[in-house]
Amino acid sequence: MHIVDLNCDMGESFGRYTIGRDEEILKYVTSANIACGYHAGDPTTMKKTVQRALEHNVGIGAHPGLPDLAGFGRRPMDISEEEAYDMVVYQIGALKGFVDTEGGRLQHVKPHGALFNMAAKDQPLARAIAKAVYDVDPELVLFGLAGSELVKAGHEQGLKTASEVFSDRTYQQDGSLTSRREPNALITDHEQAVEQVIRMIKENKVHTVQDTDIDIDVHTICIHGDGESAIDFANYITKALKESGITLQSIGEFITK
Amino acid sequence: MHIVDLNCDMGESFGRYTIGRDEEILKYVTSANIACGYHAGDPTTMKKTVQRALEHNVGIGAHPGLPDLAGFGRRPMDISEEEAYDMVVYQIGALKGFVDTEGGRLQHVKPHGALFNMAAKDQPLARAIAKAVYDVDPELVLFGLAGSELVKAGHEQGLKTASEVFSDRTYQQDGSLTSRREPNALITDHEQAVEQVIRMIKENKVHTVQDTDIDIDVHTICIHGDGESAIDFANYITKALKESGITLQSIGEFITK
Amino acid sequence: MHIVDLNCDMGESFGRYTIGRDEEILKYVTSANIACGYHAGDPTTMKKTVQRALEHNVGIGAHPGLPDLAGFGRRPMDISEEEAYDMVVYQIGALKGFVDTEGGRLQHVKPHGALFNMAAKDQPLARAIAKAVYDVDPELVLFGLAGSELVKAGHEQGLKTASEVFSDRTYQQDGSLTSRREPNALITDHEQAVEQVIRMIKENKVHTVQDTDIDIDVHTICIHGDGESAIDFANYITKALKESGITLQSIGEFITK
Amino acid sequence: MHIVDLNCDMGESFGRYTIGRDEEILKYVTSANIACGYHAGDPTTMKKTVQRALEHNVGIGAHPGLPDLAGFGRRPMDISEEEAYDMVVYQIGALKGFVDTEGGRLQHVKPHGALFNMAAKDQPLARAIAKAVYDVDPELVLFGLAGSELVKAGHEQGLKTASEVFSDRTYQQDGSLTSRREPNALITDHEQAVEQVIRMIKENKVHTVQDTDIDIDVHTICIHGDGESAIDFANYITKALKESGITLQSIGEFITK
Repeated sequence: MHIVDLNCDMGESFGRYTIGRDEEILKYVTSANIACGYHAGDPTTMKKTVQRALEHNVGIGAHPGLPDLAGFGRRPMDISEEEAYDMVVYQIGALKGFVDTEGGRLQHVKPHGALFNMAAKDQPLARAIAKAVYDVDPELVLFGLAGSELVKAGHEQGLKTASEVFSDRTYQQDGSLTSRREPNALITDHEQAVEQVIRMIKENKVHTVQDTDIDIDVHTICIHGDGESAIDFANYITKALKESGITLQSIGEFITK
Repeated sequence: MHIVDLNCDMGESFGRYTIGRDEEILKYVTSANIACGYHAGDPTTMKKTVQRALEHNVGIGAHPGLPDLAGFGRRPMDISEEEAYDMVVYQIGALKGFVDTEGGRLQHVKPHGALFNMAAKDQPLARAIAKAVYDVDPELVLFGLAGSELVKAGHEQGLKTASEVFSDRTYQQDGSLTSRREPNALITDHEQAVEQVIRMIKENKVHTVQDTDIDIDVHTICIHGDGESAIDFANYITKALKESGITLQSIGEFITK
Repeated sequence: MHIVDLNCDMGESFGRYTIGRDEEILKYVTSANIACGYHAGDPTTMKKTVQRALEHNVGIGAHPGLPDLAGFGRRPMDISEEEAYDMVVYQIGALKGFVDTEGGRLQHVKPHGALFNMAAKDQPLARAIAKAVYDVDPELVLFGLAGSELVKAGHEQGLKTASEVFSDRTYQQDGSLTSRREPNALITDHEQAVEQVIRMIKENKVHTVQDTDIDIDVHTICIHGDGESAIDFANYITKALKESGITLQSIGEFITK
Repeated sequence: MHIVDLNCDMGESFGRYTIGRDEEILKYVTSANIACGYHAGDPTTMKKTVQRALEHNVGIGAHPGLPDLAGFGRRPMDISEEEAYDMVVYQIGALKGFVDTEGGRLQHVKPHGALFNMAAKDQPLARAIAKAVYDVDPELVLFGLAGSELVKAGHEQGLKTASEVFSDRTYQQDGSLTSRREPNALITDHEQAVEQVIRMIKENKVHTVQDTDIDIDVHTICIHGDGESAIDFANYITKALKESGITLQSIGEFITK
């Protein structure tokens, strides 16, 4: 039997500023990565997003980012390992405040944007993040790019880890994502995107832009919560996965070390 | 037997900016109010301050403030009750992250600056804060100005509350502090300051600027951690209290509902 | 001949966050109040908004606000007169940077949100703001609520001032706007809103909720740039004003001391 | 005749946080680089620092930095060229607001910290900054590390540029500063530091850690405004330079294209 988690970034509104169609996308995903006030999100948004996730019975994750609201956490910053550890503890703690007051349970942690990308390749940074997650709660699941340093660091640290794949991105032979600067970085055709994911899940293989197959682990698929076709694609991929006999389930319910 | 807690604001440094002589003042106080990144403090400062407080066996409190680093949380802001609730949960949660990772236990919550002063008089705001503290952990002790709406709200909410007094401030007949704009607001003489506190503790009375005595509850005394004479005064008051037969103890060890 | 300026807040997007339909609303208004990075706006947004305003030949104004992005500058804060002066100089200067580099000329200054409302009633604050505007450039036009302390302070300071009215708000007998907390604060009917404005312009009168007429000055009308019907209303009011023989012109072209 | 400018970073306090001994150091330097609210500084600090610089007849410069108060602008961030251009225009404009209101004249621009270092090596970034400076005012002097891309970009843009050297840092054969991570990065001996600078000025040569001499341009020397020995060193270097027959003068008074 094939099981996979479907995750989406959420709670990225800030004050009067709104981003994302959280209410709608929650009907489709099984895990929500909730922004913690650094790259996006504010206390009220965090609380409401936790409440909505609980209503929809969706697994709740902290989504810590770089302290860069103006850049939405997407601009790499040269932070030290200690700063990374500390800002991850801070943000998980803040979100946990709302999870606790709302009677929920924190399921996972997924670093956001540049922090996620940096931690995919930078071993000391990856280890600092993994240690922060572990120190807050060793039962948390750490999300990282499939095959990344972050997944390795989480594993070494003794955490449960979730290997994440992207349905709408092409892969390089070394397992990395094709840079968005390349013309063939994105898969815009929904059918092709879903085919890639289903093959990853069933065969643990992905076809690279170098025209080769490589092995890939998949525990969770990332989909987007804003943009024109976000809801359409969420609807499309959940249907297609189910029709292929793949079960959608929150990561915390099936992941093991 | 007379027991009192001695508290001080701490961890108010930010990045390369340093405020307060935390390391020295920790030798004297029994409770530390640690800034949570809103009016002051940053993740690394928070972690280190928690570590130091644990080393000195000092009770650890969250010190949530208004989101106003430029004004050090001292400028009243017209926030809603929901915003107050949410920003208090956020900040307690963030500090709790470090208390948990460092193996400590959060003892209390004391709002900072303008939030503390506003909550002394504004019942709905006081209730929102008390509810936030209770919802995070009903065992936390809530600090408020002696006789304030905040202490009342904490009591009604079912929290343990600590009535705080100031050794270096004069009191009005209605139990409020004399405004800092008044010439007689401050007690600069150490001996006189300590006499006022000892009388508060032993007789539950304070002499007001209107030349009358009023009743006052005292569970904790606030002292300052920066300024020229901060360490001298900390040394002076702790000696004087002990010589008067008053026991200094962390609030969590003796407070009851 | 009747002349009036039509102004709208603009450039209030921030990083990846978008607010307002600036591009469309610029076709209708004669003056643009551009956010300066405190309550909203960021450098890139400021530059682009200045560029667009110049393309549409719309008068450019600085729109300084309180340092409260999370609250969109709408939460009153207890700032000192010096802080008000300094933050207004800072924000006008920053916007002027872009006006200068883009080859334009700064026409006016309109404080935003809570700062605008506070300055309507608080004389020392109003004077601090007027002095800041004057000190940066005595030729700037200062916008204030018709009949407000801000308009008076600007006048006393020797600035040209623009009395602003709202088409969609009801008025009190003392010339103030009915609080948004009251059920009859808003005029939602477009026809009624425009009728009120046209009478203000032609007769210098407005009918109050106390069922009396009061005198009112009008140099500029504020319309909104976001919300469902913003563009419809902009279209409706500009047509109606022109059909009534009222000329729409940028404030800088017709205002005198 | 030998002339040199002596510059120091200033106005880096923020709210209640104080850094630097500006008042004292202003007696020694000929140019002040004033923080603009991004990496440090706030409107009131900026105004007061401009006032003090004018009192001491010291050349005033804008000191724009990365938007990273927590990291004091020292953490490299991956910003785009457009973002760099815009944040430099914004910050120069903001400081110019105070220079204008205080009746002064802006003399120069020196990027701060990581922005300065990044612009030393990154040509497109250097060009974006030089263009921003030029577009605000083509008469401004642009400060850059001697031999850097920033000085080259300023020159190409048609700006007057000032080549900056450090008295207390050692140099590599390629003209770059020895990384602070290396043990021999700093020159802590005052006499040796001043000897290096005097030779740079008189012979346009510096001895590198590779034991070779290289050519170097010197228009301005950077000294530090905080730390134990800052004032002592300022006193020492100004005396030594004068005794060597070197004239200290604000860059604007002697620099030519």
